[in-house]
Amino acid sequence: MSAARFEQIALIGIGLIGSSIAHAARRAGLAGRIVGSARTAATVETALRLDIIDEGFDSAAEAARGSDLVVLCTPVGICGVVAKEIAEANTFRDGAILTDVGSVKGAIVRDVTPHVPKNVHFVPGHPIAGTEQSGPESGFAELFDSRWCILTPPADCDSAAVAKLRGFWEGLGSQVDTMSADHHDRVLAITSHVPHLIAFNIVNTAGHLERVTDREVIKFSAGGFRDFTRIAASDPTMWRDVFLNNKDAVLEMLQRFSEDLTALQRAIRYDEGDTLHRLFTEASALRRGIIEAGQDTDEPDFGRRVAGPQEAKRENDDD
Amino acid sequence: MSAARFEQIALIGIGLIGSSIAHAARRAGLAGRIVGSARTAATVETALRLDIIDEGFDSAAEAARGSDLVVLCTPVGICGVVAKEIAEANTFRDGAILTDVGSVKGAIVRDVTPHVPKNVHFVPGHPIAGTEQSGPESGFAELFDSRWCILTPPADCDSAAVAKLRGFWEGLGSQVDTMSADHHDRVLAITSHVPHLIAFNIVNTAGHLERVTDREVIKFSAGGFRDFTRIAASDPTMWRDVFLNNKDAVLEMLQRFSEDLTALQRAIRYDEGDTLHRLFTEASALRRGIIEAGQDTDEPDFGRRVAGPQEAKRENDDD
Repeated sequence: MSAARFEQIALIGIGLIGSSIAHAARRAGLAGRIVGSARTAATVETALRLDIIDEGFDSAAEAARGSDLVVLCTPVGICGVVAKEIAEANTFRDGAILTDVGSVKGAIVRDVTPHVPKNVHFVPGHPIAGTEQSGPESGFAELFDSRWCILTPPADCDSAAVAKLRGFWEGLGSQVDTMSADHHDRVLAITSHVPHLIAFNIVNTAGHLERVTDREVIKFSAGGFRDFTRIAASDPTMWRDVFLNNKDAVLEMLQRFSEDLTALQRAIRYDEGDTLHRLFTEASALRRGIIEAGQDTDEPDFGRRVAGPQEAKRENDDD
Repeated sequence: MSAARFEQIALIGIGLIGSSIAHAARRAGLAGRIVGSARTAATVETALRLDIIDEGFDSAAEAARGSDLVVLCTPVGICGVVAKEIAEANTFRDGAILTDVGSVKGAIVRDVTPHVPKNVHFVPGHPIAGTEQSGPESGFAELFDSRWCILTPPADCDSAAVAKLRGFWEGLGSQVDTMSADHHDRVLAITSHVPHLIAFNIVNTAGHLERVTDREVIKFSAGGFRDFTRIAASDPTMWRDVFLNNKDAVLEMLQRFSEDLTALQRAIRYDEGDTLHRLFTEASALRRGIIEAGQDTDEPDFGRRVAGPQEAKRENDDD
């Protein structure tokens, strides 16, 4: 039996990440039972129907009872509330590991830690993986394969608990790194939070133009815009909580982004072609590193196949 | 024989778009011969080796000789120079159609029109299709399938020439729309130019951080950043010319983008969660329209397959 196996895993929240953990844990044989709770009864029913969980509960406290791993998979803003609820119901199992999958770590440490009993090991975590889809139907076993999962254990964290959780994420397919919560929040501000904010923003800017219609934006989106809409389709509640809970790092990165954009804008205004060319050339180099690191596909255009009305007609010509 | 067929097509510039036109025209049987010229002899040699062109020339004027369709596939900034060169050599065929594929239309009309002889029909065009790759090896016949091609014929343009070019692009797989050059430049500023500028910009902002390393940006790019790097890998010369030649529309859209981003930044600073949630919800709606219009794949995460070191290990588990 793998050292990373848990007898009972409780998923608190069963969306894209929670359901993918269930699929990946079953694939790797790392879960005896999987139980779960969700905000709505409909989500619990769906998760039962899809065999994501073996048993469903209407409260996090009931799901936690008897579980040696409790994973908070809710939006960042309510992790503290959920931890408090379990602690007050006194249903944490002795020696259990409590973790989370939140995209922000400092705020979760601040909100959750006060409610963690002495006999429970809280190891904050964040798998850097996802799609633009939400809900229990959207999960799949391969989501974490080759992606990174960051753990941010506090200095006094039980090292055996950290090692076990690391082994668990490796079993789910991830590579695992550890760092401080503060550094995590700074890294994710630039690699995830600000990109999402910019994507949300340009989609809305496009929607408010008077002389370019939404229909035109849609028709001609293949010029680049459509790439932004993918991440702008992500769950609004999750992202609201991310921005409210990583305010300092996001505002700092946004300030830098805006300064740099102002410099580009100025180069355009004053016809500084050499400056533009140099900055564009620098930007293209980073992509090669991402592909070499296995973090994106090297197929042009993401390997998109042609979709739409002409697909059937052209199918025989494809190789 | 199709009414959209040309006896000899001259490609002036043989990069991603030029070579894709050749592949798609051959697929559809719309070209008797295809000839071409390029900035470097190496590109011409590659195009000959890959059977993209039947004959190669070291000057645009020689390629134009005898061609009933001349397609300018160079960066926007030199289209005027090339048209002048052909006109001065007096090698345009009587009744030929001259078109281009530039991402900007107003500046090309301004630069090219003065050099177009009376017996040549200039119909500016722009296929809204591409990948992040460049050069003659990167073209493929399916690039234009289901994508839009915009023609911006001037008011006095020969209607038979416009109809023939429309038929040609439809034969290459495109849907065709017509509009004024001015409106084109406004639409493309928001659907393509500003998205590219923002992508270039955030990649450079990430590269200049002191406390987050390039290696960390690469490792953790799956949180959203990697989507931006794809379009930031596009050809720097092409994009320099786009921004220098669509200055007014780009600067106007950038101003709007920055105002909207400042409003989001302010909502984060003052904890206005409802505002964030509302704006994020609005942004997600547009993506559905893009997928319904066949302009992007509806597979989550662009249908990316897991890449990298774990791929081989997992291959048997994929379905």
